[in-house]
Amino acid sequence: MWHENEITRKLDIQYPIIQAGMAGGTTTPELIASVSNAGGLGTLGAGYMNPKHMKQTIQKIKKLTNRPFGVNVFISETPNVSEKEIEKANELLRPFRKELKLTEPKVTKPLTHLFEKQMEIILEERVPVCSFTFGVPSKEEVQQLKQKGTIVMGTATTVKEAMINEEHGIDMVVMQGSEAGGHRGTFSASFDKAMIGTMALIPQTVDHVNIPVIAAGGIMDGRGVLASLTLGAQAVQMGTAFVTSLESGANKQQIEAILTSTEEHPVITSAFSGKPARGIQNEFITKMAPYERSLPGYPVQHTLTKQIRSEAAKQNRPEWVHLWSGQSPRLSKRKSAASIIADIVSQVDDLVKYR
Amino acid sequence: MWHENEITRKLDIQYPIIQAGMAGGTTTPELIASVSNAGGLGTLGAGYMNPKHMKQTIQKIKKLTNRPFGVNVFISETPNVSEKEIEKANELLRPFRKELKLTEPKVTKPLTHLFEKQMEIILEERVPVCSFTFGVPSKEEVQQLKQKGTIVMGTATTVKEAMINEEHGIDMVVMQGSEAGGHRGTFSASFDKAMIGTMALIPQTVDHVNIPVIAAGGIMDGRGVLASLTLGAQAVQMGTAFVTSLESGANKQQIEAILTSTEEHPVITSAFSGKPARGIQNEFITKMAPYERSLPGYPVQHTLTKQIRSEAAKQNRPEWVHLWSGQSPRLSKRKSAASIIADIVSQVDDLVKYR
Repeated sequence: MWHENEITRKLDIQYPIIQAGMAGGTTTPELIASVSNAGGLGTLGAGYMNPKHMKQTIQKIKKLTNRPFGVNVFISETPNVSEKEIEKANELLRPFRKELKLTEPKVTKPLTHLFEKQMEIILEERVPVCSFTFGVPSKEEVQQLKQKGTIVMGTATTVKEAMINEEHGIDMVVMQGSEAGGHRGTFSASFDKAMIGTMALIPQTVDHVNIPVIAAGGIMDGRGVLASLTLGAQAVQMGTAFVTSLESGANKQQIEAILTSTEEHPVITSAFSGKPARGIQNEFITKMAPYERSLPGYPVQHTLTKQIRSEAAKQNRPEWVHLWSGQSPRLSKRKSAASIIADIVSQVDDLVKYR
Repeated sequence: MWHENEITRKLDIQYPIIQAGMAGGTTTPELIASVSNAGGLGTLGAGYMNPKHMKQTIQKIKKLTNRPFGVNVFISETPNVSEKEIEKANELLRPFRKELKLTEPKVTKPLTHLFEKQMEIILEERVPVCSFTFGVPSKEEVQQLKQKGTIVMGTATTVKEAMINEEHGIDMVVMQGSEAGGHRGTFSASFDKAMIGTMALIPQTVDHVNIPVIAAGGIMDGRGVLASLTLGAQAVQMGTAFVTSLESGANKQQIEAILTSTEEHPVITSAFSGKPARGIQNEFITKMAPYERSLPGYPVQHTLTKQIRSEAAKQNRPEWVHLWSGQSPRLSKRKSAASIIADIVSQVDDLVKYR
């Protein structure tokens, strides 16, 4: 059977379909549980979550499913950003704040030891799968997780980054192709050299690492899933496909934008967070584009624009909201997560049968 | 059988593998004939060819194979470039010319009516397949070709461009993903919005056109071929895979660079020709990068740098040669074209059998 392989065995899931751990509220306990109950692997996007909220959410997921699920966290970064840079960014953001009637946010230092506290909870809760983005955990952290029975998943965008994951003892690695929506997971290569299309990235990676590879980027249906397995991946990770699911916690502006966009609309921008990410082009991206290179790095710019984005969503101004999407929005559907997975499974079954 | 479909029937070829019509000497009659004799479709890259040379080459190909082959031509462009822009570009190019001991070239107007003369020859010679890049021939031109029994193939980089091809009566369309090496075939969309990965581009296109689709970009082996067919394409077009073949006419610097590069090395640059193209990063690209936006458009910049590139190749200075490559150089092999195709066919046979 096409869905029986090292990854489905290791993760104890029926289908090699992983729902990406998108941070910022998209991955509700309902979405995660639906995906896991349908035979895939749901993942909590806990990147921005404070420890208390994270713990409560994990406990809620456990009530909704007894199948394995994952939690995704970010490897922390401490950018060196001057007061002057922050003031320059605030100058650019003031017109948006004014129109939304927002006050200037205080740039507080990112919660210290957030990552360490998140890790403690993951260990305490014996989360079945823990995935990492924006870097690789230390070998010691990987071993701690493994000792608790947690499977450790990395994210990479080049063959070299996949090899770094393998070296650190990671169990399996998500290879994020250039088609992917949301933030680029690049952590070692330079951003532009790590914009490798999925079709090129997967076969070159599986030839150079021994750990199993998960394909991500532009995959939305059974064709993409079977194509990825054909390239040598043992599973896929899909984000955009689940953003428009009925259980998704994404704001309605993002869902609507994905459902009505074409492959030409999602562009790469650093304007929202200070880190390159793919989202559907809108006024905020266009207006900030000339200044992109001088904006403060992640997560400072993320903090500076956070209120603007959430208030713009509340006031239904999609032109200022981050509309993360991969390059296949034409394939998006407004359906339950279970039905998205069932469609994929039956499409792959047919493709395999009638080849 | 996986290789029996509308495209292989229409083109009367055994395997759905098309060798890209790369301009500039790579596609020797020997390469084209080898590919066609091995069951694929060889293609002459005639984009820059003067009519006399083109006619002789077509006649030579006919002597080497009685199987179908293609000829690729460029839809002509007449950019509006001022003397001042040319002088500015020449200023940047002078240091290269000085070191190579080259004199300044006269920028002659591009051969008038080159495209019309190329079309005449294609009609006279009743070429089996004619493919177009950088635009779409008029409906009348398409009909003229069809009346002679020539199959007409287009190149597109977005769904909309594919639809324009279909509207013009084109028989089948090559969808060039962002992974592809050499020039971007974008002709209607803006360059950056048309950088769609193959994994995303193929399924979205096949859902919106009725003509058969050919996948291109990052495909180098049986995995890529079967993945492309799975996504809904009915054939693949491969360029980089044949650049390193034994029959290739590419300069040794390009072949060597592809064979020793990783997926991180091929970048997009307009420095060589005035049109975005993917090639392995070298000193010429790096040095010209700050001025890229102000360089004269294609084909003027192409004409200005032509001598530099060919002389640099002669003097074995790969740092100034255009080293076109797609994003999968790790998969390249120095082998005969026939053996490259045989490897692909047996790999696909195995993948289909042991799925």
